[in-house]
Amino acid sequence: MADKQTEISTLGEFGLINLLTKELPRHNDSTLKSVGDDAAVLYFPDTKILVTTDLLLEGIHFDLTYVPLKHLGYKAVAVNLSDIYAMNGTPRQITVSLGISKRFTVEHIEELYAGMRLACENYGVDIVGGDTTSSRQGLVISITAIGDAPENQIVYRDGAKDTDLICVSGDLGAAYMGLQLLEREKVASAGQKDFIPDFSGKEYLVERQLKPEPRRDIINILRDKGIKPTSMMDISDGLSSELLHICKDSNTGCRIYEDRIPIDYQTAVMAQEINMNLVTAALNGGEDYELLFTVPLTDHDKISKIEGIHVIGYITKPQLGCKMITRDGESEIDLKAQGWNPLQ
Amino acid sequence: MADKQTEISTLGEFGLINLLTKELPRHNDSTLKSVGDDAAVLYFPDTKILVTTDLLLEGIHFDLTYVPLKHLGYKAVAVNLSDIYAMNGTPRQITVSLGISKRFTVEHIEELYAGMRLACENYGVDIVGGDTTSSRQGLVISITAIGDAPENQIVYRDGAKDTDLICVSGDLGAAYMGLQLLEREKVASAGQKDFIPDFSGKEYLVERQLKPEPRRDIINILRDKGIKPTSMMDISDGLSSELLHICKDSNTGCRIYEDRIPIDYQTAVMAQEINMNLVTAALNGGEDYELLFTVPLTDHDKISKIEGIHVIGYITKPQLGCKMITRDGESEIDLKAQGWNPLQ
Repeated sequence: MADKQTEISTLGEFGLINLLTKELPRHNDSTLKSVGDDAAVLYFPDTKILVTTDLLLEGIHFDLTYVPLKHLGYKAVAVNLSDIYAMNGTPRQITVSLGISKRFTVEHIEELYAGMRLACENYGVDIVGGDTTSSRQGLVISITAIGDAPENQIVYRDGAKDTDLICVSGDLGAAYMGLQLLEREKVASAGQKDFIPDFSGKEYLVERQLKPEPRRDIINILRDKGIKPTSMMDISDGLSSELLHICKDSNTGCRIYEDRIPIDYQTAVMAQEINMNLVTAALNGGEDYELLFTVPLTDHDKISKIEGIHVIGYITKPQLGCKMITRDGESEIDLKAQGWNPLQ
Repeated sequence: MADKQTEISTLGEFGLINLLTKELPRHNDSTLKSVGDDAAVLYFPDTKILVTTDLLLEGIHFDLTYVPLKHLGYKAVAVNLSDIYAMNGTPRQITVSLGISKRFTVEHIEELYAGMRLACENYGVDIVGGDTTSSRQGLVISITAIGDAPENQIVYRDGAKDTDLICVSGDLGAAYMGLQLLEREKVASAGQKDFIPDFSGKEYLVERQLKPEPRRDIINILRDKGIKPTSMMDISDGLSSELLHICKDSNTGCRIYEDRIPIDYQTAVMAQEINMNLVTAALNGGEDYELLFTVPLTDHDKISKIEGIHVIGYITKPQLGCKMITRDGESEIDLKAQGWNPLQ
């Protein structure tokens, strides 16, 4: 937190917007007119346009007692870009709407916005508009991301075919374990002055929770190798839930192998510490923002050689259902969308 | 309110989304893929794309003690479409994000969504995506609208020229007075059972506050008559504030005539009842969602004949400032953006 704290009322809405949107860079030719009119003006004559949106609410999606505002801004953008990459597209623009309650100062919002600008810089995205208002209900962040892709490049959820290989990038469950760790340290810190949280040996988990990166790198590698997934989505609600989406939309079944689900050792250590089933965490813990996709069996040799991509199973005919084959290879467990129900 | 009330937790997030987005109509060829994947897919090969977004928060932008949910849904869409029309474009798609607290039932959200669907039906707009989440403190509505326009048709805020005529559609201040009326009746109703609010003779004010209509009709008339405004925006924060935006962005001054500002008689009656300066209400009361635009002086005869459009003044060189000529014609008052500061 900066030392100087300025009340937002001293600037007013327009003053704050002017401050935040000063000298916004422009990375894309498709951005014709940015912030400053009733609407932004974009132009995509040759490609299809991708649009996705996410709403993040304080107390539901983030807890500012342990989430730094700059990280929050970065993550709010990153999770939207992840949806564009999951269509095999390129993110180009975002709009940012903020609801700000009285306890936030100009400097707080500058921190938040700095994180957003950094994510936009890293991924070549333009901030082209938004809305800023006061809030009675803590911080509200609503981001809409716009991207594009040539028509023949777009990958939907409904294209998986029998015998396709099921692949995931990175590893799973770490962001969820990061959340458990942060919550644990929050509880431990209650009432203590100058409390220093203990993240030693678990830095990766904290990073996965606080600063997820959308997998542009994976999208680029697949393109370089000439592999076009038959279906794809990003893993935000847990592998199990997302795989069920793909199978339902594609009218298929699937088999995944428990022992092929990629899990980082820090995730495993944390699961043991809090006495939680590791595979449950990997299957149902949210916010991984990895890519889940299917490729034709004929791409097996190509896909197996790519670092950071794991083949975890295969697509079946629909009547075979969606199941996980246990580590001992002896039984099959139905996959269920056990991820938290955010509306409960 | 419907009799039967179903807790949202019985459906869960996906169940609710499925219910709300069931059989969404498709009005536009530019909508290639709607709700149901990581992103919607749109296509505008020949036109420029317009993007605008608004965030509406309970307790700030609406009070559910007197705003019916269906009206709220309608208005939330309408105010976004108004921004697209204000660019001289055609709205095509929206995304809808909702934050829902526990006191809302499935039936409540269906009411809200019914209003959104009605507005979309009336204006030929497709709902193509969104996000639904729980909220700890009331209802959150974030809508992004996407429209399009041929490049040579788009009207910005910065094109006003010396001697251009300043025009507004409809009348001003009624929505603000409607808000005062609704607030007055809310206070009167406090603690009373079966209170019946008294809106007699002021139905227009209530309608203007609760169910604004974006001025597609005006956009169509101007196009039919071959009039292209040199600058345009919609009046959401009050005439005074918006006119200052146009003059600043266009580097001009302006003169408007107090006695030419269009005001409905119900607005005048209400202003007298609550002892408020009528012109202040018309200049600074928000949420009119009328169009403010400038046309070349040579369009004077054409524009004067159009019902529902009022020429209220003219654009000047910048050094003359932005002023209103009083009713007696004897003095000039500086225009100020006195609209409420929503961040205070």
